[in-house]
Amino acid sequence: MKKLINSPDAVLADSLVGVAAAHPELRVDHDNRIIYRAEGTRQGKVALISGGGSGHEPLHGGFVGLGMLDAAISGEVFTSPTPDQIQEATKTADAGAGVLHIVKNYTGDVMNFDMAAELAGADTGVAVETVVTNDDVAVTDSTWTAGRRGVGVTVLVEKIAGAAAEAGRDLASVAAVAREVNERGRSMGMALTSCTVPAAGKPTFDLPEGEMEIGVGIHGEPGRRRVPLAPASEIAAMLVEPILADYDFTGGPTIALLNGMGGSPLIELYLMYGEVAKLLEAEGITVARSLVGNYITSLDMAGCSLTLLAATDEMLELWDAPVSTPGLRWGV
Amino acid sequence: MKKLINSPDAVLADSLVGVAAAHPELRVDHDNRIIYRAEGTRQGKVALISGGGSGHEPLHGGFVGLGMLDAAISGEVFTSPTPDQIQEATKTADAGAGVLHIVKNYTGDVMNFDMAAELAGADTGVAVETVVTNDDVAVTDSTWTAGRRGVGVTVLVEKIAGAAAEAGRDLASVAAVAREVNERGRSMGMALTSCTVPAAGKPTFDLPEGEMEIGVGIHGEPGRRRVPLAPASEIAAMLVEPILADYDFTGGPTIALLNGMGGSPLIELYLMYGEVAKLLEAEGITVARSLVGNYITSLDMAGCSLTLLAATDEMLELWDAPVSTPGLRWGV
Repeated sequence: MKKLINSPDAVLADSLVGVAAAHPELRVDHDNRIIYRAEGTRQGKVALISGGGSGHEPLHGGFVGLGMLDAAISGEVFTSPTPDQIQEATKTADAGAGVLHIVKNYTGDVMNFDMAAELAGADTGVAVETVVTNDDVAVTDSTWTAGRRGVGVTVLVEKIAGAAAEAGRDLASVAAVAREVNERGRSMGMALTSCTVPAAGKPTFDLPEGEMEIGVGIHGEPGRRRVPLAPASEIAAMLVEPILADYDFTGGPTIALLNGMGGSPLIELYLMYGEVAKLLEAEGITVARSLVGNYITSLDMAGCSLTLLAATDEMLELWDAPVSTPGLRWGV
Repeated sequence: MKKLINSPDAVLADSLVGVAAAHPELRVDHDNRIIYRAEGTRQGKVALISGGGSGHEPLHGGFVGLGMLDAAISGEVFTSPTPDQIQEATKTADAGAGVLHIVKNYTGDVMNFDMAAELAGADTGVAVETVVTNDDVAVTDSTWTAGRRGVGVTVLVEKIAGAAAEAGRDLASVAAVAREVNERGRSMGMALTSCTVPAAGKPTFDLPEGEMEIGVGIHGEPGRRRVPLAPASEIAAMLVEPILADYDFTGGPTIALLNGMGGSPLIELYLMYGEVAKLLEAEGITVARSLVGNYITSLDMAGCSLTLLAATDEMLELWDAPVSTPGLRWGV
């Protein structure tokens, strides 16, 4: 295993030291592994928090800031944060208007966020709403999940619901738009290589030269099938087709996210996006906004995922609103 | 070789299709492999162009836009663009105030940009100034270079000189600040793994498990030495020490770029930045601005580089000016 780390058990703690040093506009609670806005949540604004296992950076800590999250909680690599951590973040982020928990659908995350929501309510009376993302069309149940996994749409939920909160909407309204984004979003991923979890010291799964995994999860969970390596144009079809089979993206604007898994260079991600764009155009789908790059990763895995969102006009407007985070920034 | 490509000889062309599809604010001249601003260079503004072999994305095409480059020219992977391509970009970008060529110090790039500058002057009378970046302290001459290699400072030159051009300065003044940034910047890189050039189909060099290359170049050129794999804190020292031995960064603000080589995940890059920040603080160096992420890459190489710039107050002001490119965006 070759990694830029000090020791496998200190990866998260050491990385948070770097986040704190690099971003004076953020603060890090090192005990609870919470990244939050230095200036805190604006009084009366609905707070958005999210979190999960680390190893998916910039998700979630890289999306803390104006227009997105108020706080993000990190568990160890691919390990859910504890209810205590999440409860602490909920209390820290609340500014009197309640807190939206954005939770990717993994059993541990869902359980621990639920427990934290209950604790926060009982302890301090903070109102909590939860949106669970489950956009991955690859599998219905997985080794880590009951139901579909939550992946790329989580980035879009954080951006769009974050803008709704900045605009002053109340908790019910912010939660509603977050749920609507999840309902109208679909994703599919693939891997050329496994990732290597530092504590394990070896690749999570074997993927021989000449093969790839279609429908892989962001922790290296098995996908739909193992197939021979294929040209990018065919890989694009293997991502686009199951998404379009699951939801109708014609007749309105689409937001497209071509996401890198962490180990694939940008030149390849743009190449993949070019192939995806051709297929979408041929299907009469209008891409109104797009993102290409590493947004929800799986450590050093080589590969990519595609997320499509059938955006409403309201969602496009919220998408275009100013955002200022380490991972996503425009308009400010 | 596992890559998201159609065929090794179509990587650049196919990737540019994706760039054009993803960025309506940019245009791509596919024949000449030039990425330029859709609205063109503002009349009377000094134009900035840069380019080189591809495989270093987001450099250079990802830095085209308000506040940075007016156009970027791509050669094939790790191959200089031709004088004809560069001349074409020079003519396209010129808006009556002349053109600054930003050239990384590699023999082919320097030669071809020089020839293009002569051709553009003779052909159309466009005034051209050139800044050659040579910030890499690792080696004095290399397999690809007479003199030091140009690496991470190129990103800072493009940002700062780009802001000077947007502010309406003339060609001599923009060139002067670009040269000053290069003179006050130093870099050092390292690799955990080789990169794999698509056309070669195999890693550029062998780097056994348990070893790393200190002072590596962005094409996988040999560095200073091959050493046993070490903890991040020691790697940080191997990057910081030769930089500080070469230039005095105390007594003023520093801009720090902790750059990923393409295959290292963000969690590791932040971890490395944390280690670097500790060392700089211990040396009495004040980091005024920082960037952590993939900015000048070497395909899928795992590793990182550090660039420090002893910024003047003027440079900080230009750094903070609005920028809107795919790779760097703030204030707009």
